[in-house]
Amino acid sequence: MIKVGIIGATGYTGNELVRILANHPEAEITAITSRTNAGRKLEEVYGNFTGWNGPVFSGSDSPDAVAGCDVVFLALPHGVALELVPPLLEKGQKVIDLGADFRFRDAATYQTWYKLTHTQGELTKTAAYGLPEIYRKEIRQAMLIGNPGCYPTSVILPVYPLLKEGWVDPDRIIIDSKSGVSGAGRKAEAAYNYPELFGNFKAYGLAGHRHTPEIEQELSHGAGRAVKVSFTPHLLPVARGILSTIHLSLTKSVTTQEVEEILARYYQGEPFIKVLKEPQLPELKWAVGTNCCQIGVRVDKRTNQMIVVSVIDNMVKGASGQAVQNMNLICDLPETMGLQQQWPVYP
Amino acid sequence: MIKVGIIGATGYTGNELVRILANHPEAEITAITSRTNAGRKLEEVYGNFTGWNGPVFSGSDSPDAVAGCDVVFLALPHGVALELVPPLLEKGQKVIDLGADFRFRDAATYQTWYKLTHTQGELTKTAAYGLPEIYRKEIRQAMLIGNPGCYPTSVILPVYPLLKEGWVDPDRIIIDSKSGVSGAGRKAEAAYNYPELFGNFKAYGLAGHRHTPEIEQELSHGAGRAVKVSFTPHLLPVARGILSTIHLSLTKSVTTQEVEEILARYYQGEPFIKVLKEPQLPELKWAVGTNCCQIGVRVDKRTNQMIVVSVIDNMVKGASGQAVQNMNLICDLPETMGLQQQWPVYP
Amino acid sequence: MIKVGIIGATGYTGNELVRILANHPEAEITAITSRTNAGRKLEEVYGNFTGWNGPVFSGSDSPDAVAGCDVVFLALPHGVALELVPPLLEKGQKVIDLGADFRFRDAATYQTWYKLTHTQGELTKTAAYGLPEIYRKEIRQAMLIGNPGCYPTSVILPVYPLLKEGWVDPDRIIIDSKSGVSGAGRKAEAAYNYPELFGNFKAYGLAGHRHTPEIEQELSHGAGRAVKVSFTPHLLPVARGILSTIHLSLTKSVTTQEVEEILARYYQGEPFIKVLKEPQLPELKWAVGTNCCQIGVRVDKRTNQMIVVSVIDNMVKGASGQAVQNMNLICDLPETMGLQQQWPVYP
Amino acid sequence: MIKVGIIGATGYTGNELVRILANHPEAEITAITSRTNAGRKLEEVYGNFTGWNGPVFSGSDSPDAVAGCDVVFLALPHGVALELVPPLLEKGQKVIDLGADFRFRDAATYQTWYKLTHTQGELTKTAAYGLPEIYRKEIRQAMLIGNPGCYPTSVILPVYPLLKEGWVDPDRIIIDSKSGVSGAGRKAEAAYNYPELFGNFKAYGLAGHRHTPEIEQELSHGAGRAVKVSFTPHLLPVARGILSTIHLSLTKSVTTQEVEEILARYYQGEPFIKVLKEPQLPELKWAVGTNCCQIGVRVDKRTNQMIVVSVIDNMVKGASGQAVQNMNLICDLPETMGLQQQWPVYP
Repeated sequence: MIKVGIIGATGYTGNELVRILANHPEAEITAITSRTNAGRKLEEVYGNFTGWNGPVFSGSDSPDAVAGCDVVFLALPHGVALELVPPLLEKGQKVIDLGADFRFRDAATYQTWYKLTHTQGELTKTAAYGLPEIYRKEIRQAMLIGNPGCYPTSVILPVYPLLKEGWVDPDRIIIDSKSGVSGAGRKAEAAYNYPELFGNFKAYGLAGHRHTPEIEQELSHGAGRAVKVSFTPHLLPVARGILSTIHLSLTKSVTTQEVEEILARYYQGEPFIKVLKEPQLPELKWAVGTNCCQIGVRVDKRTNQMIVVSVIDNMVKGASGQAVQNMNLICDLPETMGLQQQWPVYP
Repeated sequence: MIKVGIIGATGYTGNELVRILANHPEAEITAITSRTNAGRKLEEVYGNFTGWNGPVFSGSDSPDAVAGCDVVFLALPHGVALELVPPLLEKGQKVIDLGADFRFRDAATYQTWYKLTHTQGELTKTAAYGLPEIYRKEIRQAMLIGNPGCYPTSVILPVYPLLKEGWVDPDRIIIDSKSGVSGAGRKAEAAYNYPELFGNFKAYGLAGHRHTPEIEQELSHGAGRAVKVSFTPHLLPVARGILSTIHLSLTKSVTTQEVEEILARYYQGEPFIKVLKEPQLPELKWAVGTNCCQIGVRVDKRTNQMIVVSVIDNMVKGASGQAVQNMNLICDLPETMGLQQQWPVYP
Repeated sequence: MIKVGIIGATGYTGNELVRILANHPEAEITAITSRTNAGRKLEEVYGNFTGWNGPVFSGSDSPDAVAGCDVVFLALPHGVALELVPPLLEKGQKVIDLGADFRFRDAATYQTWYKLTHTQGELTKTAAYGLPEIYRKEIRQAMLIGNPGCYPTSVILPVYPLLKEGWVDPDRIIIDSKSGVSGAGRKAEAAYNYPELFGNFKAYGLAGHRHTPEIEQELSHGAGRAVKVSFTPHLLPVARGILSTIHLSLTKSVTTQEVEEILARYYQGEPFIKVLKEPQLPELKWAVGTNCCQIGVRVDKRTNQMIVVSVIDNMVKGASGQAVQNMNLICDLPETMGLQQQWPVYP
Repeated sequence: MIKVGIIGATGYTGNELVRILANHPEAEITAITSRTNAGRKLEEVYGNFTGWNGPVFSGSDSPDAVAGCDVVFLALPHGVALELVPPLLEKGQKVIDLGADFRFRDAATYQTWYKLTHTQGELTKTAAYGLPEIYRKEIRQAMLIGNPGCYPTSVILPVYPLLKEGWVDPDRIIIDSKSGVSGAGRKAEAAYNYPELFGNFKAYGLAGHRHTPEIEQELSHGAGRAVKVSFTPHLLPVARGILSTIHLSLTKSVTTQEVEEILARYYQGEPFIKVLKEPQLPELKWAVGTNCCQIGVRVDKRTNQMIVVSVIDNMVKGASGQAVQNMNLICDLPETMGLQQQWPVYP
């Protein structure tokens, strides 16, 4: 039984780690931390966990709170993990960071986009980018995982193979993403007050969202050259899920079926990637609550464009589910363990 | 042109007053106040008001801010109006208070339920309870209006005539109300964060909601004797609207049609009350955006119960629309002026 | 491995049976039927099942289609099971009927409320009412289960013990229930068109909903005498979940805590019943996606009323999850098998 | 008083015409038609119109049904207006067609995309494209208006001036639009059943939506050369509103402020166009219920892209409101008459 600690368990991704790990047959949550809920039971604070018999909240987000854990998940504001990770690694604990601190190969990129000083420039080079479908080998050997952002997961998975294949123009990638509001975290702000967003929809973070460099880093890796993307996120009036519509320019004449095949072949055997066939296209709710990414494509001969649609659950494949998938890999467990709910609660 | 001031114009009911009065042919908003937005234009703070050319926010919730206004609306937290009203009245300004401070004939009731000291016990006796369909005469003559609460409006309108008629047992009134989230105000609390309430529904304030004594005060007036009610509100995952389901015990054998008729007769000529006929029953959205109250009833011979369903928009007939209706009355304007949108934006 | 057949697998409850059983370690779905989708794969018709490798749809809702199955679930319109069940039982197959045909001890009640002739009056007496928390013993021995209705499940579970205890007046039970729209089934009707219900809410089926006699049958059993209830359902603008607010008159002076205790004691050891303690009250989403029923109560000394709030997922504990729970019982499997997701996908 | 007839008044756009015209000071609805509701009152069929005292439904969608009307609105399935319009024009009635039959200058385009034979090739050349902000002069003189599609309205208004100015590349226009479900009409299809779309989101009509050629026709007009666009619509889980995110490639170095200014100048004095200034960006609900179009832009120097965001209410500016605006123009009334609700019901 693997002992697991979660530092920052009161946020949505922290809660989601508990939900998933509570049913994991080889993991046991032995520590959860929350600076605001010290000593309280999770079910007292969040009634959706009624009946869960795990540990009470430890009040300190410190390495001591997770002493004895084999794996430590960090679900913290950006920047906080920078100081926490070194002492954890020193004790031989494996660390999966759900924030952005260890996602970048180049600490300078992080500094530019996150406006924070990156104090662990060497360490970040040793971290694996936790997207198993692309970096499975690196992940298995890593002690530190930079768990991918939600939007980047939804974009990299479908576009990476197409760039690798050379079928689309790396200079003309337009990403139009739409996310449920849980992506913003457990916010106490009037702008996220229920009536404000009910029946509403909006774009935000234009020309500057911090997931942009993460997408570019990985797509550049796939393309074998520097890639810049135009990334525009939107806020959907739902709790969960990301749907990304990715507009690509074709570099050669291919059909929808050929693209479906190249993607299906690239992801053959992958338990969490589902490439749909025309006439189906992914719908948001087909992924919600699962660790799956569904992908659909359409080639438009008339305009020489390809439109790619992908969906994930931002809290699962886009955060905590992927983190557990990474845990399974670094702990030599079956990759799908604890993530077996392939088919969503629907409708 | 009547000069209008709104003290507390950043909340939902304050905003709603602006929305309604902006199209009122005989009213001109000359002052709006907000302690947090001094000097800013309304449209800068709230993009839904883009193009509105009213005054900028005055930064003080004080009588000075509304000097020169003929009518002053107060959209403030409970308790604040107690001190503000006397100086306004002294200057001859008419006051419509959207809070609870002047809704009770008996200041002691207010003190018990609101846990606040009522410093204006004499003044509150002179205030009219601003439900025009019942107190039109008193309102016309008043300088101070205690504008009714949203839930009470939805309950008193359908039940008052039935108690007056003596058809239902005043000792067995069960009120099960459901409100959109805007009723809670512009909240910056995690409990009102969009994802928390999305797809959710809950009861709250059981056995202690502060609209209970207001309902009881008015139903007692209708019944001609003291009435106690069991009132249970719920939070609907929508922005606007209240639907109240009121469970009554019959004291005599009547049909659904007879009840419809008694209500239709009582409210004959009322522009904002619509009594539906079987098989129709009110739906929440049929009232949203309008100042109307729709009412439907069903008699259940099998159990000797009557079920009454009423809907209003909590922000319009339940707050700011009714306040404007009251303004029309105290200013001798046609009662429906500025409130002519009888049919909602639908679907 | 138990072989399972689902007759009527295109509706919501049929789909939900597949979703749950797909992860059941001891059950294998060997037949699904649909008159409209013969020969098609489930995933082709419903993209949320992408990747599911079960049987294709058989085009006939007949016993032949489920030949060889140990357990047969019927998810059909009311009345259809009456003819299907006898031949299935003759072949020694166990039958769990999710419709109303075998829920009533007295076929006459069914005929009165469902306006259908009940041709299996003797058989219905042998059927167990599939509410395990109350009829576990009978269920274990039955070949035929009448799986409870969704609303009745949400009402009987909290009220049955209170009536048994004699703490509430059986003549004054007011049930105000609210259900997500999936309860109406996969409807192709304009009244269920998305825009009609979006932001909307309404009561329906007043004084005549067909779940009334089912509730009365079971509460009468609990009370040891005939009970009539006033039952008013509403349509919530969400996909899933039922919250029932039940208004009861106290027959003796008890506290909220005493009621919580009596319920907790009655349901001690029950894996799917969760009695909350003040100040918590159940929220709809705390049950969605799980087979749990959460219950909360409040005593109102002032009015001598008790208000009970219960939540379930209408598709799980209110239909397909409870059906699987029943399957586990009649097949001598652990009762919670396949139903282990105790904590919902939240938010 | 202008006499108005609405052929096809049971659909959403027909209903919306009634809602708007019911408050129009110079128009009187004298005829509404519906093949399915002959002889019934509108309020009987649609409870949201309770209290409206207009004519009952005429059961025939024929010219006779609107005899005596000065202006006739057609809210019918595509293709039906082709035969109806000539006899109406012959009687001297002005016609505003909300369908696609008379939106195209070139009937061949219509035939290609709508798969219908266009029998009125000459007549369509005389029709004005009813986008007043661009074709006001033509509209004033026309007897027949092809009222624009909803998506095209949301796209043409912001992009037309930018193409005219030559600031963006006409060969790289990517339109990613999101619409509320009312855009699909009053559907009785399982795919539009409330639970299917609740919490859901999807793209549809990729590489083939019929609003594409309409957008191209008008943008080509603005650019002074043939323009092809890539248009991808999505279905938002809300009732109303369209938000279009338009991705453009800059042809010269400009700033966000310069683009805002060029748009503001182009639409100076337009009552229904609101160009927002950074940092504001339009939100869907800021337009819902109004006839306004809000526009915001951001220039991304890093990628040399411009992102334009526009919002309209698909039922108002995208259909019935614009139709009334056109009616005002062809009847020499103030253009904003009956459309004065500039600020939406919010939140």
